[in-house]
Amino acid sequence: MTSEPARTPDIQALAARNASRQLATTTSELRATVLHRLADQLELRAPQILAANTEDVLAATGVVEASALQRLKVDGAKLAAMAQGVRAVATLPDPLNRLQLRRELDEGLELTRVTCPLGVLCVIFESRPDALIQISALALKSGNAVLLKGGSEASRSNAALLDAVQGALLETGLPEASVQGLPDRAAVSVLLQRPDLVDLVIPRGSNALVQSIQAATRIPVLGHAEGICHMVLDAAADTTMAVALVRDAKLQYPSACNAVETVLIHRQAASRLLPALVADLRPRGVDLRGCPACRALVPDLAEAGEADWDTEYGAPILALRVVADLDEALAHIRAHGSGHTEAIVTEDPGAAARFLAEVDAAGVFHNASTRFADGFRYGFGAEVGISTGRIHARGPVGLEGLLSYRYLLRGSGQGVEDYSGPSARPFSHVDLPLEP
Amino acid sequence: MTSEPARTPDIQALAARNASRQLATTTSELRATVLHRLADQLELRAPQILAANTEDVLAATGVVEASALQRLKVDGAKLAAMAQGVRAVATLPDPLNRLQLRRELDEGLELTRVTCPLGVLCVIFESRPDALIQISALALKSGNAVLLKGGSEASRSNAALLDAVQGALLETGLPEASVQGLPDRAAVSVLLQRPDLVDLVIPRGSNALVQSIQAATRIPVLGHAEGICHMVLDAAADTTMAVALVRDAKLQYPSACNAVETVLIHRQAASRLLPALVADLRPRGVDLRGCPACRALVPDLAEAGEADWDTEYGAPILALRVVADLDEALAHIRAHGSGHTEAIVTEDPGAAARFLAEVDAAGVFHNASTRFADGFRYGFGAEVGISTGRIHARGPVGLEGLLSYRYLLRGSGQGVEDYSGPSARPFSHVDLPLEP
Repeated sequence: MTSEPARTPDIQALAARNASRQLATTTSELRATVLHRLADQLELRAPQILAANTEDVLAATGVVEASALQRLKVDGAKLAAMAQGVRAVATLPDPLNRLQLRRELDEGLELTRVTCPLGVLCVIFESRPDALIQISALALKSGNAVLLKGGSEASRSNAALLDAVQGALLETGLPEASVQGLPDRAAVSVLLQRPDLVDLVIPRGSNALVQSIQAATRIPVLGHAEGICHMVLDAAADTTMAVALVRDAKLQYPSACNAVETVLIHRQAASRLLPALVADLRPRGVDLRGCPACRALVPDLAEAGEADWDTEYGAPILALRVVADLDEALAHIRAHGSGHTEAIVTEDPGAAARFLAEVDAAGVFHNASTRFADGFRYGFGAEVGISTGRIHARGPVGLEGLLSYRYLLRGSGQGVEDYSGPSARPFSHVDLPLEP
Repeated sequence: MTSEPARTPDIQALAARNASRQLATTTSELRATVLHRLADQLELRAPQILAANTEDVLAATGVVEASALQRLKVDGAKLAAMAQGVRAVATLPDPLNRLQLRRELDEGLELTRVTCPLGVLCVIFESRPDALIQISALALKSGNAVLLKGGSEASRSNAALLDAVQGALLETGLPEASVQGLPDRAAVSVLLQRPDLVDLVIPRGSNALVQSIQAATRIPVLGHAEGICHMVLDAAADTTMAVALVRDAKLQYPSACNAVETVLIHRQAASRLLPALVADLRPRGVDLRGCPACRALVPDLAEAGEADWDTEYGAPILALRVVADLDEALAHIRAHGSGHTEAIVTEDPGAAARFLAEVDAAGVFHNASTRFADGFRYGFGAEVGISTGRIHARGPVGLEGLLSYRYLLRGSGQGVEDYSGPSARPFSHVDLPLEP
């Protein structure tokens, strides 16, 4: 993926740090321009990119699973979508230098807080080559440098795509080191030990990848290892809505992290809801597994074991459990949820309010599919990833997840001594309008 | 510091987790009440607290340094200030359940983002016993449970203060496990390996303490290891202002992390500014150390070695260096700064603008003392600490550093299937007013 095997990862990261300093002070226009040039480059270099991808796909055929092969494949339409995606990021509002706070501390002493880039990102992704372009676009838009490591099965595709990024950087006069490929996992391992060189690690791929990264570094990691999402069908759930929402949350895209894995059904509604669910989902090929109470109602249901409550199937498999009440549903979610997205279906405003107030997850939904947990659906324009961490960014993360901020203080010679001690001058602390 | 030596740290942390869940759904009133009760308890238990502290001070006399002894000592006035501080935190606006975003995704499908507690904090602090009360107050105000480990020399004082906290929790009916003492550093070490049990670690104390904690955990750490702050005296600096600001930044409280350690003087102004600085600071007992160019101007100046540029003196010692221009000053700060607070003194708006735009630090100041980098001076009402990290919170951190957020989605039966594919229903994505 890189053409610079001679450089050690720490030298690459130092070059990225230097590049990030230049990027931090670029204009909004220049960062938009480099993205438009990148979109152009993707179109200009389409023959090379598609040829490289064909080689990758040939080499991987029979070696990786069909679904991975599908993700690896880039055709003309996918490439056009990549270019379109880059142009969409280019036209988003500039995330940098945004005023978050403006406060007069005293006459002639004004504090502001403005957004700035994080610095250097390290992104590890699996087979999808389009991730390289999406991540590069988001990083450049937000003024961050990025070190990328893609899946080895996509190495030729990634090299061709990286050439497009390099071409755009050169055309625009931005440092080439703004976006670099890392040669191998060993390089990633080196950088994971260097919190001085890398500000944020973003793993995009399987749960196993994310977990292995999280365990290997004390650099902040943005991502989610697991998406075990629940849907609670309350005593007061509407049958038609409940069935439709479970169907959407399970089947619309079963391998998504925000797909539902376990449905918890209130005992009072189980005899009404469970047969309707089974009647709807079984013909659609969903492998249903139930607790003993479920199996008492639907005798031919497969048995759900303890492991089912902690499994992210990522497939058309659904675990079903009858719960005594909302308390038991909340306890089940506390014990087995991954803090991703949890939903309740109910016509009872009190039950909905309690669920929304008490569930501790990045997303807590009422009468909506868990599949809405997504940056594009939330209207963020671009998605960096979905975080189940509680620090920095949680849930679907847009460009703001790639930002930090700085406090700027503009004075006229003030020292703190005047504001200290028994005859201290008071601070005014007046918030000023953010818009000029 | 704890009266429960039989409980293992993980059991303590699990109890804290349970307590944190209860705290997260408490009313603003209840969290204010527990703080008022805590202030009352501090006053009621003054005799026991002062007696315990006297024992600690006696035991530490001759064992720890005079400055540490001073920090350890609690008298009636300090205790009154603690109670007053707790009441001040009680009256701050409720940080929880604040609406950060409100957006219509479609008719009958509304997304909000509301603040929530982080969960369980682990706070390690050194000799100051008042830190225990301040931290407990901030944690309870923000609905977080907290596990505390204070300095062993303050163990009797901390136990007495913890009794006051427990008394307030019991009086208010909040879980006792909301605030717990950890018995020893071994307990801390155990918890530092448990990101599943602790959400944020806050070390408050020496650089060595912070560094050792940062190196030992992959749980997010809020704090700063070093405060190497610079003041740049530009060619266009006003002499009187420059001297006054350096004096304030160095001497107002030399052991503070936001005190200045190195002054960088523009070559064009060196012959004007340096003698004025020396004339002002030397009589005040500042140990001045200069680069060769400084010593050419002030021959009896002590020599600054390479190590001086990387040293946080925490004392009335100041390193001085002549730089060729603003570029060299910026390069020096990049090489030696700790990302805490950097200041420029200049009457040249262009130089100021460049400094404010280019310096990457939590605080970047123009014509003001670095000592303003402080949560109270910024108007945050309460300070959790000062962070030199770039993730989550940077610079002085108020209560918002103890918060995360949740996305709440209120629908009326929507699935994502309707919003997918070629005939997808469009999202409206209309931002709604945050105030009702």
